[in-house]
Amino acid sequence: MLEAFDLQSRIQKEDYGAIVQPLETKAGELQREIRKRGKSVIIVMEGWRGSGITRIINLLLPVLDPRGTRIFPIEEPRDIEREHILFWRFWTRLPAYGLIAIFDRSWYTSSIVERYDQQSMDELPAFAISDIINFELQIISDCNLVLKFFLHISKEEQKKRLFEIKDSPFTMQARYLKRKKELYMVGSDFKMIDRMLMKTDIPSCPWTIVEAEQMKYAYVKILKTFNSAVESWFTIKEKGVCGQDQSFLIKSLSATDDSSLLDRADLTKQYTRQEYKPILTSLQEKIRGLQIEIFRKKIPVIILFEGWDAAGKGGCIIRLAEALNPRGYVVEPIGSPNDWERIHHYLWRFYTRFPQKGHITIFDRSWYGRVLVERVEGFCTESEWQRAYHEINLMEDELIQNGTILVKFWLHIDKDEQLKRFNDRQKDPGKNWKITEEDWRNREKWDDYNIAVNDMVRKTTTTKAPWTIIPANNKYYARVAVLDTVADALIKRV
Amino acid sequence: MLEAFDLQSRIQKEDYGAIVQPLETKAGELQREIRKRGKSVIIVMEGWRGSGITRIINLLLPVLDPRGTRIFPIEEPRDIEREHILFWRFWTRLPAYGLIAIFDRSWYTSSIVERYDQQSMDELPAFAISDIINFELQIISDCNLVLKFFLHISKEEQKKRLFEIKDSPFTMQARYLKRKKELYMVGSDFKMIDRMLMKTDIPSCPWTIVEAEQMKYAYVKILKTFNSAVESWFTIKEKGVCGQDQSFLIKSLSATDDSSLLDRADLTKQYTRQEYKPILTSLQEKIRGLQIEIFRKKIPVIILFEGWDAAGKGGCIIRLAEALNPRGYVVEPIGSPNDWERIHHYLWRFYTRFPQKGHITIFDRSWYGRVLVERVEGFCTESEWQRAYHEINLMEDELIQNGTILVKFWLHIDKDEQLKRFNDRQKDPGKNWKITEEDWRNREKWDDYNIAVNDMVRKTTTTKAPWTIIPANNKYYARVAVLDTVADALIKRV
Repeated sequence: MLEAFDLQSRIQKEDYGAIVQPLETKAGELQREIRKRGKSVIIVMEGWRGSGITRIINLLLPVLDPRGTRIFPIEEPRDIEREHILFWRFWTRLPAYGLIAIFDRSWYTSSIVERYDQQSMDELPAFAISDIINFELQIISDCNLVLKFFLHISKEEQKKRLFEIKDSPFTMQARYLKRKKELYMVGSDFKMIDRMLMKTDIPSCPWTIVEAEQMKYAYVKILKTFNSAVESWFTIKEKGVCGQDQSFLIKSLSATDDSSLLDRADLTKQYTRQEYKPILTSLQEKIRGLQIEIFRKKIPVIILFEGWDAAGKGGCIIRLAEALNPRGYVVEPIGSPNDWERIHHYLWRFYTRFPQKGHITIFDRSWYGRVLVERVEGFCTESEWQRAYHEINLMEDELIQNGTILVKFWLHIDKDEQLKRFNDRQKDPGKNWKITEEDWRNREKWDDYNIAVNDMVRKTTTTKAPWTIIPANNKYYARVAVLDTVADALIKRV
Repeated sequence: MLEAFDLQSRIQKEDYGAIVQPLETKAGELQREIRKRGKSVIIVMEGWRGSGITRIINLLLPVLDPRGTRIFPIEEPRDIEREHILFWRFWTRLPAYGLIAIFDRSWYTSSIVERYDQQSMDELPAFAISDIINFELQIISDCNLVLKFFLHISKEEQKKRLFEIKDSPFTMQARYLKRKKELYMVGSDFKMIDRMLMKTDIPSCPWTIVEAEQMKYAYVKILKTFNSAVESWFTIKEKGVCGQDQSFLIKSLSATDDSSLLDRADLTKQYTRQEYKPILTSLQEKIRGLQIEIFRKKIPVIILFEGWDAAGKGGCIIRLAEALNPRGYVVEPIGSPNDWERIHHYLWRFYTRFPQKGHITIFDRSWYGRVLVERVEGFCTESEWQRAYHEINLMEDELIQNGTILVKFWLHIDKDEQLKRFNDRQKDPGKNWKITEEDWRNREKWDDYNIAVNDMVRKTTTTKAPWTIIPANNKYYARVAVLDTVADALIKRV
């Protein structure tokens, strides 16, 4: 791929001013338009070492307005970043809508440094490539624009430049790029980089190879590409077709066809209080020990609860939490997104909450809100919730591939049981804070929710991330089943 | 202080259930009430090593509802935390309004571990104590509640317990507490801890010493204290008197009495474009070199810009940014807070943006919004903006004490010049995006703003953090003055 480019490309010095001036004005206008249009532009800057990434960014920044642009230099990961899955550090950096983010080095560099196989420097492993592509598709399917530039220079030019910059303290990435061996060297890494570029040169997110021996030429090419890409992105957005033509790499892994999955749950299952107490205590004891092992082995754990209103999520979470050392878990109650979260990709607020290695995050409701409440109440478009199944499967697959234990609960009760609980809550002065008008309104839409839940369970039950349907008409049974399932999931990995 | 407590305090086992049950019910009710009332409760848990902090938290958590409570175990600081001032890690953890935060160890432990003087273990240094008190007063003056518990046990009991827990991986803090020497030992640290407790036992935020040899007794005392403190806090909040009786430790350091400070600026100062160009270039070159030194010496730098609309802040920031390596600075444009920021202390969103060591943060508008736009437009109460001068002085003093370089600019133009620029902007199709209805409305309130600005400059000009008033009728002069001031401020420290 790289070989097709002519590194002799130059711009005449005397032509430069006349060419660059209108391009910069245009780019400035487009930047202000981006702010208004409410989605973000992510610019990836990669290139050989010494190819001039910083110089290009310094030229671009005043043009794009430093107030509307975020620069993220990717260096040696922070300790907190090392304790999360690789893409956590990029998800958490995704800019709010309306902003431009420039990644000075990116997930490409991180993937090469942290994921290549010592044995074969010719190629990134397949899972690294698919994680990269999936990440970019997640961003694009949310109607954002990803622009990827690779600054290309010759071996001779690189040698000369590396000598010039060798004393700058801002070549901070150098240490990172040297972690396993000297990386991004035109000579020794040509084949690997070339293959990486080819494999990630997907139609909705192509690479722009920039001949960078002459900075003026490189800058002009980047400005031109930026301007035309942003303009055609505006057109696509206006047509409303973005996010609809994405084919994700990984499909739902093992969807069954049963349309009444929930009905299979045997809601007659129960324990008496006397039976329940000792079982609960022994399960809590077991989980207490398992948490220590999880912590020692640095395995991240996500336990998520969805279920009908009044199905007893809170009670299950408290019983689970009682078993855990508070230094190693956190409960994340998920409501409607706040306005800061709303101007990000809808999965962003979950990525920011994912556990570090050895810790447990308990989600009280979750990203499944997209295909439940948001679908039923019309808070998102049909196209959005339709593609969410895939997006969620992708995300969960990424979590599991990266070592996370994921347990998903649907707490199931029937409509009569819910009515009984609503009435009990209403009457009990110690509990009536638990019930609101909204609960009654949701109840009226039981049938709509029932369809949504069945669709959700069917489309997001994968071999690696299955749903556990908990029959919860009897709360003692439900709590035991939840703790038992958690214990089992942990045991498998310790 | 500690000696006054009887460590033999016990609760009879047979009485425990009857005592604890109503206390827990009450605490649960109060927790839900806290959610509604819209301010937060911060609970500090300190105590001798092995005094049972985790066990207490585990008892409290189900009662307070894990969904409404955040636990923050304070351990060895993260690398990103070490690269900020000490209290950054606590500011960034302040919970949103409506939540309870429990600090499992806190700024007390961090201050002891990171700030005590090797020579004299009898006492924390004075600046450490005043930083602690100032932090707590900032929280309290925002009408939040801070509850501080110290779990007290005897030397013999401690010895026994440390033996029991020595193998738990969750005694994670142990490493941190051992960094310089074994800390929180009843024998060797008694005097230091006792003095620290006494000095920070301030009326608006007293310590509760908890006899913790018997866990039941300790738990009951904590519940009782929590319940009564929260109830009386509700009463105080209802009367609307919170936040008004705070006497801050550090007053405005060198306020002058001149009420027309701005008028002193000589607005006739100017450069022609020909004079300006070479001066700018040489100043940019100088700053480029200084940034490298700042980076090498790991000094954090904050440069903030306030000024009249159209005074030219953006132009100054771009010229400054051009001189800087993008890997070491960020521009933070400050508008009205988003809803997530709004449910935090108003200084919270600035603390989260403060630079790490060696980096530069440029604030385009800042925390001074409180005493400018929020005052003039009535977005906050008079009591709030009146006390903000002190709060801001405290915060800046803390920054500087902790090594930050702080440069504050007011860009000053006169009313005629503003009108001229507004009209120019309106006419120029390339610039009219810069001018809005709001700018015209603000202009009508020029006199009100003028009073506010003069007050601000007078009350927040301290010897360590003075304002630099930049005469900005001539934009070339202004840019040179800004870059010159920045260069001077940096040179003093490298």
